[in-house]
Amino acid sequence: MQQKTFAGHFFEDFHLDQTLVHATPRTVTEVDVSLYTALYGSRFAANSSDVFAMDLGFEGAPVDDLLVFHIIFGKTVPDVSINAVANLGYASGTFAGVVYPGDTLMARSQVIGLKENSSGKTGVVYVRTQGRNQHGELLADYVRWVMVHKRDPASPAPTACVPALPAAVDGQDLVIPATLDLAAYDTALSGSTHLFDDYAVGEKIDHIDGTTIEEAEHMMATRLYQNTAKVHFNQLAQATSRFGQRLVYGGHIISLARALSYNGLANAFKIVAINAGSHTNPTFAGDTISAWTEVLDRHAFADRADIGALRLRTIASKNLDNAAFPAKDAAGKYLATTVLDFDYWVLMPRRG
Amino acid sequence: MQQKTFAGHFFEDFHLDQTLVHATPRTVTEVDVSLYTALYGSRFAANSSDVFAMDLGFEGAPVDDLLVFHIIFGKTVPDVSINAVANLGYASGTFAGVVYPGDTLMARSQVIGLKENSSGKTGVVYVRTQGRNQHGELLADYVRWVMVHKRDPASPAPTACVPALPAAVDGQDLVIPATLDLAAYDTALSGSTHLFDDYAVGEKIDHIDGTTIEEAEHMMATRLYQNTAKVHFNQLAQATSRFGQRLVYGGHIISLARALSYNGLANAFKIVAINAGSHTNPTFAGDTISAWTEVLDRHAFADRADIGALRLRTIASKNLDNAAFPAKDAAGKYLATTVLDFDYWVLMPRRG
Amino acid sequence: MQQKTFAGHFFEDFHLDQTLVHATPRTVTEVDVSLYTALYGSRFAANSSDVFAMDLGFEGAPVDDLLVFHIIFGKTVPDVSINAVANLGYASGTFAGVVYPGDTLMARSQVIGLKENSSGKTGVVYVRTQGRNQHGELLADYVRWVMVHKRDPASPAPTACVPALPAAVDGQDLVIPATLDLAAYDTALSGSTHLFDDYAVGEKIDHIDGTTIEEAEHMMATRLYQNTAKVHFNQLAQATSRFGQRLVYGGHIISLARALSYNGLANAFKIVAINAGSHTNPTFAGDTISAWTEVLDRHAFADRADIGALRLRTIASKNLDNAAFPAKDAAGKYLATTVLDFDYWVLMPRRG
Repeated sequence: MQQKTFAGHFFEDFHLDQTLVHATPRTVTEVDVSLYTALYGSRFAANSSDVFAMDLGFEGAPVDDLLVFHIIFGKTVPDVSINAVANLGYASGTFAGVVYPGDTLMARSQVIGLKENSSGKTGVVYVRTQGRNQHGELLADYVRWVMVHKRDPASPAPTACVPALPAAVDGQDLVIPATLDLAAYDTALSGSTHLFDDYAVGEKIDHIDGTTIEEAEHMMATRLYQNTAKVHFNQLAQATSRFGQRLVYGGHIISLARALSYNGLANAFKIVAINAGSHTNPTFAGDTISAWTEVLDRHAFADRADIGALRLRTIASKNLDNAAFPAKDAAGKYLATTVLDFDYWVLMPRRG
Repeated sequence: MQQKTFAGHFFEDFHLDQTLVHATPRTVTEVDVSLYTALYGSRFAANSSDVFAMDLGFEGAPVDDLLVFHIIFGKTVPDVSINAVANLGYASGTFAGVVYPGDTLMARSQVIGLKENSSGKTGVVYVRTQGRNQHGELLADYVRWVMVHKRDPASPAPTACVPALPAAVDGQDLVIPATLDLAAYDTALSGSTHLFDDYAVGEKIDHIDGTTIEEAEHMMATRLYQNTAKVHFNQLAQATSRFGQRLVYGGHIISLARALSYNGLANAFKIVAINAGSHTNPTFAGDTISAWTEVLDRHAFADRADIGALRLRTIASKNLDNAAFPAKDAAGKYLATTVLDFDYWVLMPRRG
Repeated sequence: MQQKTFAGHFFEDFHLDQTLVHATPRTVTEVDVSLYTALYGSRFAANSSDVFAMDLGFEGAPVDDLLVFHIIFGKTVPDVSINAVANLGYASGTFAGVVYPGDTLMARSQVIGLKENSSGKTGVVYVRTQGRNQHGELLADYVRWVMVHKRDPASPAPTACVPALPAAVDGQDLVIPATLDLAAYDTALSGSTHLFDDYAVGEKIDHIDGTTIEEAEHMMATRLYQNTAKVHFNQLAQATSRFGQRLVYGGHIISLARALSYNGLANAFKIVAINAGSHTNPTFAGDTISAWTEVLDRHAFADRADIGALRLRTIASKNLDNAAFPAKDAAGKYLATTVLDFDYWVLMPRRG
């Protein structure tokens, strides 16, 4: 009789160019949009109002880009990272598509790199994941790499192959949804008059507010994404782990930081790329998350007078005020309170 | 470089007749309806069943009036009360419209009164808020007043102006949605045979049940309303406040009390006015809320044999049984256990 | 003046053949589907994706059968079990219908048995509950029996009548929705290649994962079902009960166990019958639930080469690893860690 349960892939189960078709396609609904609001309190007007979004050329309020990312990410967990020791990084993430309620998301990943660690007990797996809708249109495309346990330390190491990854998506490679026209963008309804033209490279913004995380919230969010990583859900098992408690899904922190960033970046109406992201310390229920952002770069599109892109670095901290823009110590090491270092591109209206 | 974050208005930022256009229009969906059910357990049939609601002349199950109120209220928080010391009261609230999933809510407020306090450190701001849908139709219109910090105690006091506010909306000013016809009202499906004709002025009803509040619940509810008041979300900051913990949004208590009131008022199918409301003591996670109601007045509409209106006063208590209808002590001061005193008009079918 | 609140039925309020029309019809929305995902993390593809479901002949993603069950069950609580001492069992449950978002659920119960207990203080009530949609189509039909308090121990005992109930629904009485055709069933997207043909009677499957329950989660779920049983919500009252805390609704455990069973039973795409179910021990917030399943029977339909049915027994435990398939002790008594013994039929694709 065959074993019916699937314990996930170990390091030696991966091979270069392997394609993983991830299970459980997921129809996104307007529910996910409202639940996302209830879980993070996001206030970006384009994701909140059909009327506002249609005035910009969307078909209706688009699904938040991070919600799309989390759902696609969640699909990859059983095949890629259920036996992961650590989620090491993201790179080269582009969000070319726009998702509306009713669309069905599917995901596939390709193994693009493998490298056994010197310990012989674990290895690093690099995958490129693509999320598509029911029409096969590409919605999201990103690389992530994880450290995965070997099933058998004695199994031979694969030929090491580490993909070359860019430090950031180039501004000119960013895709603006074709139907957008920001002529009617209303800054009274968006909640801020600060536009692309007003932000300077190097500028730092303290997003002021903080949000305390509850177990029920991060678990509901992570289940909404159908992300099955055990460390988020099973207190019985976590009690004997080195943390002694459930870990919050790193993407939950990204979404909390993005929602907090509304105060200071209210017109950053769409995320179009993820350049890099590190979950620099674990977060637990009871932690209060706050965030600040630095403007890393600006990109003016040659053919669009109405839209520009800002490259942002958002740092989230736990249980710490952000007035001094904390991130690393004098030695360049992340502070124990820094839980996220996230580098991404957003679209923002330009002054007409 | 301009400051990009908005710390909210202080007392000296308000002036008489000032109009505040509140940010982030919000499309209400059937999600909000179900999430509201999950958060409060409300069982009023018209809000629960499209079929039942259409039998009364609605287009479908209308969005709960309090959910509409909370969303409109939430929009006003960043502009009106983010620096408030206290939410002092409501008056003159009418709910003329009916909201269906798909409608987009927007809100504006006008400053109708200002009065600096004798301390010179704070002042009271009176605003009239109007919520409208995407067609500009008036949905809700109410006055509230809050005590707000001054940024600079040395700034001059404005000319004091306190608006005259009625103790209650007059019964004959209540608006019945034009399409309603209660001929087919089914008391088996609504859950009670008690109609308008059966309630007497002075009658008191103990709603029996109690509900214990969790942090995750009140925070999810308050974020669903996009209400950003810091005191509800930030345990790090609240730890050093006089309460030492997060405060539950007062509107959460109104909705819990309304849901509990189903047992005894199952046919009070629509709230049409809010006469007054006081959050008389703070509520925290872990508190168990119960409620009782007194019938204050009855209004029979001259031109409607099928519908009457009851003016109700619902008192919510924390951690206390309601058998003795507790509210105030012998000296007329609210008990420490009384958390809400809410005065409102509901519509109810009349015996045909 | 009539008492306006309803304290529920006591044992002497029931009589044989009595029909109870349950209040508050409920339109199920796609919200309930997503909230259910957020609360349980279920990953069965047919309930998750409109596209996947339509490929099987559904009109769209059907509402999870257990969600339908919980909503129908919830409607019966105020009339049947609000004064129950214990929920004793289920039998003879068939789920002939398919529910889609937009359908409105209603429920009626008929008293089919009554037996006073020897103590004279309580009695057992047997009801057959039928849930229907807005077209009057039968969706669910099941028997449950509960032990209910007498209002007055001195009231006379009714003639004892205990209905004969089958140990299980017969395989040939199971109803396959007429439109289903599994020719296009995609096991890559469903997440498992194990089909009806691969399961043997007597086979046991450990579903591996565990989920820790939070108060906010079980209360939100139970309110979503509009189930008003006091023991789930009122900490003030429960503090003085023999448990000292709120009890988790038994159906919450059924849904958690079903969601966990995806790993090992990913192609069990529809529940068509509930043969029996016992909530063998109470569950509280903080408990970690895990589950295992035994295959009790297999049924091949004479006229369907594409679909078979498996009779499953799923055991849920609290705070215990399932490697040894725990359920009862050597004396045949349920272990204190066993919280659910659930016997049901599922449909599963056959190898073509």
